[in-house]
Amino acid sequence: MQVQLCKKLESAMTLMSTRWVGLILYKMMNGPQRFSEMEASLPISGRLLSERLKMLEREEMVTRSVYTEYPVRIEYALTDKGRAMQPVIEGLEKWAERWVQVDQQEFSS
Amino acid sequence: MQVQLCKKLESAMTLMSTRWVGLILYKMMNGPQRFSEMEASLPISGRLLSERLKMLEREEMVTRSVYTEYPVRIEYALTDKGRAMQPVIEGLEKWAERWVQVDQQEFSS
Repeated sequence: MQVQLCKKLESAMTLMSTRWVGLILYKMMNGPQRFSEMEASLPISGRLLSERLKMLEREEMVTRSVYTEYPVRIEYALTDKGRAMQPVIEGLEKWAERWVQVDQQEFSS
Repeated sequence: MQVQLCKKLESAMTLMSTRWVGLILYKMMNGPQRFSEMEASLPISGRLLSERLKMLEREEMVTRSVYTEYPVRIEYALTDKGRAMQPVIEGLEKWAERWVQVDQQEFSS
């Protein structure tokens, strides 16, 4: 059991340690997001965003819904598995707020 | 403030998304660890472990103590900042336990 939990934790850490996965999930915690909304709010290319979303779909943490309107609307939303990551991400947010120093210079521009 | 928190969270996510950082911190949560103990319990090279520990020292999440015994004993321990990551890692552990499927095959050997 110990070995199995360790494997599970390792697998979860590998997933969450994939760059941008945490921030993408964080963005979706406020509700379903269109691709274009996410693309505009994250400092990554559309191609990389799309790759990460496909990965999250495979992990069953995110669903992709296509609405046949004109123009077509595509929305991404968290599944129960994805939403269950919320306390972890909120915990990380609290930690960051308390402990991370950011260079004030960065915000002056 | 929103921008600043976002930067802080991004910075925390970048740190935690550095491969093995999470597992290294997890190992240290039971108390100070010798380098050799950690090396034996993690599937990474001593060189990479040493690099990660140096990074965590720079981040002030880990301290390194040298005891001048024979043979010299070197121990790594969490600082308050490092220990404050415990709820995040425990949350991830809970999530993994509930949601991650591991291939049973892996444990048969």
